[in-house]
Amino acid sequence: MTRLLSIAALVLTQHQAAAQERAIHFPDVAPHQTLIADLHMHTVFSDGSVWPNIRVDEAIRDGLDAIALTDHLEYLPHRHDIPFPDRNRPHEIARTTAGNRPLLVINGSEVTRRMPLGHVNAIFVQDANALVQADSLAVLREANRQGAFVFWNHPNWVAQNPTGLAALTPVHEALIAEGLLHGIEIANEGTFSDEALRIALDNNLAILATSDIHGLVDWQFDVPGGGHRPATLVFASNPSADAVREALMARRTVAYFKHSLIGREDVLVPLLEASLAAAEPQYGLGTSVLSVTLTNRSSAPFTLRNVSGYTLHEHTDLFTVPAYSDVTIKVKTGERLQHVTLTFEVLNALAAPGTHPRLVLELPMQ
Amino acid sequence: MTRLLSIAALVLTQHQAAAQERAIHFPDVAPHQTLIADLHMHTVFSDGSVWPNIRVDEAIRDGLDAIALTDHLEYLPHRHDIPFPDRNRPHEIARTTAGNRPLLVINGSEVTRRMPLGHVNAIFVQDANALVQADSLAVLREANRQGAFVFWNHPNWVAQNPTGLAALTPVHEALIAEGLLHGIEIANEGTFSDEALRIALDNNLAILATSDIHGLVDWQFDVPGGGHRPATLVFASNPSADAVREALMARRTVAYFKHSLIGREDVLVPLLEASLAAAEPQYGLGTSVLSVTLTNRSSAPFTLRNVSGYTLHEHTDLFTVPAYSDVTIKVKTGERLQHVTLTFEVLNALAAPGTHPRLVLELPMQ
Amino acid sequence: MTRLLSIAALVLTQHQAAAQERAIHFPDVAPHQTLIADLHMHTVFSDGSVWPNIRVDEAIRDGLDAIALTDHLEYLPHRHDIPFPDRNRPHEIARTTAGNRPLLVINGSEVTRRMPLGHVNAIFVQDANALVQADSLAVLREANRQGAFVFWNHPNWVAQNPTGLAALTPVHEALIAEGLLHGIEIANEGTFSDEALRIALDNNLAILATSDIHGLVDWQFDVPGGGHRPATLVFASNPSADAVREALMARRTVAYFKHSLIGREDVLVPLLEASLAAAEPQYGLGTSVLSVTLTNRSSAPFTLRNVSGYTLHEHTDLFTVPAYSDVTIKVKTGERLQHVTLTFEVLNALAAPGTHPRLVLELPMQ
Amino acid sequence: MTRLLSIAALVLTQHQAAAQERAIHFPDVAPHQTLIADLHMHTVFSDGSVWPNIRVDEAIRDGLDAIALTDHLEYLPHRHDIPFPDRNRPHEIARTTAGNRPLLVINGSEVTRRMPLGHVNAIFVQDANALVQADSLAVLREANRQGAFVFWNHPNWVAQNPTGLAALTPVHEALIAEGLLHGIEIANEGTFSDEALRIALDNNLAILATSDIHGLVDWQFDVPGGGHRPATLVFASNPSADAVREALMARRTVAYFKHSLIGREDVLVPLLEASLAAAEPQYGLGTSVLSVTLTNRSSAPFTLRNVSGYTLHEHTDLFTVPAYSDVTIKVKTGERLQHVTLTFEVLNALAAPGTHPRLVLELPMQ
Repeated sequence: MTRLLSIAALVLTQHQAAAQERAIHFPDVAPHQTLIADLHMHTVFSDGSVWPNIRVDEAIRDGLDAIALTDHLEYLPHRHDIPFPDRNRPHEIARTTAGNRPLLVINGSEVTRRMPLGHVNAIFVQDANALVQADSLAVLREANRQGAFVFWNHPNWVAQNPTGLAALTPVHEALIAEGLLHGIEIANEGTFSDEALRIALDNNLAILATSDIHGLVDWQFDVPGGGHRPATLVFASNPSADAVREALMARRTVAYFKHSLIGREDVLVPLLEASLAAAEPQYGLGTSVLSVTLTNRSSAPFTLRNVSGYTLHEHTDLFTVPAYSDVTIKVKTGERLQHVTLTFEVLNALAAPGTHPRLVLELPMQ
Repeated sequence: MTRLLSIAALVLTQHQAAAQERAIHFPDVAPHQTLIADLHMHTVFSDGSVWPNIRVDEAIRDGLDAIALTDHLEYLPHRHDIPFPDRNRPHEIARTTAGNRPLLVINGSEVTRRMPLGHVNAIFVQDANALVQADSLAVLREANRQGAFVFWNHPNWVAQNPTGLAALTPVHEALIAEGLLHGIEIANEGTFSDEALRIALDNNLAILATSDIHGLVDWQFDVPGGGHRPATLVFASNPSADAVREALMARRTVAYFKHSLIGREDVLVPLLEASLAAAEPQYGLGTSVLSVTLTNRSSAPFTLRNVSGYTLHEHTDLFTVPAYSDVTIKVKTGERLQHVTLTFEVLNALAAPGTHPRLVLELPMQ
Repeated sequence: MTRLLSIAALVLTQHQAAAQERAIHFPDVAPHQTLIADLHMHTVFSDGSVWPNIRVDEAIRDGLDAIALTDHLEYLPHRHDIPFPDRNRPHEIARTTAGNRPLLVINGSEVTRRMPLGHVNAIFVQDANALVQADSLAVLREANRQGAFVFWNHPNWVAQNPTGLAALTPVHEALIAEGLLHGIEIANEGTFSDEALRIALDNNLAILATSDIHGLVDWQFDVPGGGHRPATLVFASNPSADAVREALMARRTVAYFKHSLIGREDVLVPLLEASLAAAEPQYGLGTSVLSVTLTNRSSAPFTLRNVSGYTLHEHTDLFTVPAYSDVTIKVKTGERLQHVTLTFEVLNALAAPGTHPRLVLELPMQ
Repeated sequence: MTRLLSIAALVLTQHQAAAQERAIHFPDVAPHQTLIADLHMHTVFSDGSVWPNIRVDEAIRDGLDAIALTDHLEYLPHRHDIPFPDRNRPHEIARTTAGNRPLLVINGSEVTRRMPLGHVNAIFVQDANALVQADSLAVLREANRQGAFVFWNHPNWVAQNPTGLAALTPVHEALIAEGLLHGIEIANEGTFSDEALRIALDNNLAILATSDIHGLVDWQFDVPGGGHRPATLVFASNPSADAVREALMARRTVAYFKHSLIGREDVLVPLLEASLAAAEPQYGLGTSVLSVTLTNRSSAPFTLRNVSGYTLHEHTDLFTVPAYSDVTIKVKTGERLQHVTLTFEVLNALAAPGTHPRLVLELPMQ
């Protein structure tokens, strides 16, 4: 005898749960949509190990809304087998693979130079072939002429920077001054850079996290084991390429790296507020212990530290709200109040190096 | 951006899935409801290790519809601490615990004698105290006078039967002849008996599986690891105690033991038909390979052997349909037919010792 | 062909892993052994739902070294069925169940009074029957006369304290002054109390966490889902009852609650140092990025916040070292140093309300 | 306090278990080694989606001992980007990737023709370029001249055979007669063919299962969910290319498809005997119930049907021995015997269409 659910519903939900399992998801933050993007990746057309169609299929599985293929312009170790004269080919192939599926495929290229420039991605380019030029400044000017969004890749890369401590060079300062450089990777593949985050904040660069994937996303980031690729959350007015570009140019991004969210406070805090909701505040019968249910609407677990001024009845000051779950906390307010304010440091979020944003929840009693 | 599901739905379904996870469930078989019963269990009132409320809570977690507490009448190792003069007490306590929850709690007792009688359960008794008598025949007559359903427990128990090979004694034959014994356990706790099954079939006894739990169900049957307690499926006209008793007396039962279903063919096959449905038969474009989806509506995985006369395109003759899942098979019918009959031996079902019933699926093409 | 492991070894390790899975374990802290104790639990002999043997079996499964059964002296809702004149019975039965298994079973009782005393446990009593007296002060004096360790239970219990904010009463102050009260529960069942922790620190009381289990440990604390019962880590010179009592009297305890460790800094920090080891510091070739492997030798995951002054190359300031696992971190020291000091706030540890102890790791380079 | 294991051992075993998790493994069958091979796969050099290095890495993860890259000679949809004049290139690249790792990389090609020939793989070729010829018979003669092992691919492929029912054509009969065709795929990617198995048995062809992977193995065969790629077990005198070729030519193979093993009885039964061992037969005290432990030394679960003539005390006639696990069964022999013979149908093994081999275990009592 079935009491809980019709079986049809149960079977259905198992399918849905599996489909959702690895998708990266965060709720929209009005008036924008929260799009998930990975804007740095490689294929066999430079030094990657897959045909472009795999990048599309990985992205669909990860629930991404936008990807940019950014094969190296200059570094072509497969040139023996793939002569590769047309730098727009990976993009064309990926676009064909994507077809009508809901994934934006953005044309891009990685400008691959020695320091002081280092590696720089240009995305939303019209013709990648026009970027094949000797002079790197000329390349970036051409990219900007085409309307590209341009960002500095892995400024913490030890192969180009043996301390791993990202630092602006005069070359980058000049590019920023000229308006040619718009963003910076604060997370790339498996690495994170507090110093790059500081540079982004000080120079008004867009904050980005990218996979820079060369092999397989599932392996590199242990997706079956619960890992995820680094991604950039883009807060766009609609799910079009133009809107994504506009949002990037406006610096409306949050980086998502190893289940942490990193971004400017004015962009990050509204995302946290949209992701974590408090509901059903209610005092226990005859007590001044307030029960509140926190619901996490995102695919990221949140690690919170209570700094409310009230202590908790069932937790220390540290607790976690798992992905797509709710946790009920009990707050000892001393007396029964008409209005309670709860404040949490969000430990898996960063608004600046070492600085965790606060989530403030205002709870009027019914 | 959410494409697949509203988050509310996703969070909801996780809760539902968890609730369903350990529940034993089989679909109804018209015109009856399929009730899940465990009719043999112990508490501290004889030699069990829990208060009766735990038996109720375990049953609710397991999705049971009916339980009978059957503490020993004669074996009372806790008598030092629980003098236990009232043999109806465990039942009363369990009934109070159950309250308005959807679980039938049936009064019962285990008559605990040496062979040749051995152990016998009487359930649906009105007054268990009246069963405390020296003469075992008198006990069973009194139980029957009260309207009890009476069954032989673990006839394969090596402590009373060193071969483990269940065999009727003249005592049991006399009880059956007099109509005092109505059922037999073919599975008890961790054991199963082909010989008991043969006895049930030859003597028209109800086929039962019971947990005979003394400790904790979760431990004894490794419930967190995917195990389940032995249970008896009862096909009753409604979920009342009277209807359960009527169904038991009519022998409308199937035993469920270690994910196998054991019962008379005329009761078992309709259960299999209700549990496994075939849908959407469709020939592949330009081929004579028929695709059919088998849906398992039960909590038991089914292990099937194809004996259809057609071979399968994506399986050997052996495959499994997991609990609450569907599996699509492809059948090579040689030419495109208007009507296809598929036949499977259900290997985790037994209609007699070593005899697996056949599930026949008639598939008219649209 | 087998390359990785002999199969015998593989099968063996699966058994071992399963056995370890739920066991609570922390390494020894020289010169003491780290014993895991649960010193507050109930059976059918007061208002619990299990016979004492189940408490022993649960403890063995949880890897405990010591338990105390502490049935209520005064609250006996099962008195109708268990007249229970002998308050030492639960202990006797548990002791017999434990037999030669490596579990200390300690005799105890819960003195169950209204506030201002509230509920108090006395363990290591010689004769619990002698504690059945009307005057509560007389009871505690008798307990102390018998050599008992006495602690205040759930001072945050809303049924006796509607704010849930633990506070000493004059009664408790007098008991402490007289040396009759030695400890306090800062965690009980599902609740935690910062205020109780403050009381413990200010009054030199032993810090305790207990399950206060009435039903089943597996259900109450979702053990199959990864939860654990609250427990008290006792740092004893040997695994004897006398040594446990000595350690409790000396306040050498740490409470373990929902994967957090709470204790006095001088006891807690050495435990953290024993649990988390740093090994193999090594600079990457041609870089000043130091690789260090942190190994967690305990069953608790550790949540760390880097406050070293150096930033990390592959993590934000927050990361977790799962139970029995190692995590390699990369530290950007700016230049290659001969000696590096790493400092982490241990977020799932508390030395005082809101105060997380620091783990300092000194790393000399080879 | 640690009782069960040193922590070092525990941490170590977790690493080992993870490494073993997806590896396909079967024990050696004296005097041969059991090598796991996948002899049909594609890369970007024909119509696959990955660079050859990914095929090597997938194979290492799957615990394979040998792979053959078999890109199409004639079907080259990536020709626009990869002009691909050298048919040995995928092999060369894979070999370089493999380096010193313990994986044999075998040069191969897929001859890709319309029926009646269909698709045929030639492996162990010296120069794949020499196979680029118009006449298919000439191609196969050249391949044989080079010493190739040649097999018919997916004879059940509905694109070339709309019934999916594999059948020899006069072309294949002629090739077999001339000794040019040595094997046949009875399983390819997700499909299985009883008819191909019958052809293999009737014509003395080697029995093969291959992945024919074009995309990613992890996705195609749901490896994280417990699936595995089809593979061919090769019983070779040593792990060299020559020995693999010799074993294939000698037809010493078993196909492994969806956890079933398919092969000639004289090769298959010794494998089953090596994989499943019976140990510790022992009668229960005072009973004639024999306890026997079955140990599965392979990565495949075995589904057994007891046809011993003795019934089992704790199972119906159907039970499973999971991968790398042991299961203790209890056999009711009626009296205590000096020697017991147990016989099981191995349901997940096939020696011919619908024919499950028997595993006979002789158990002398100590």
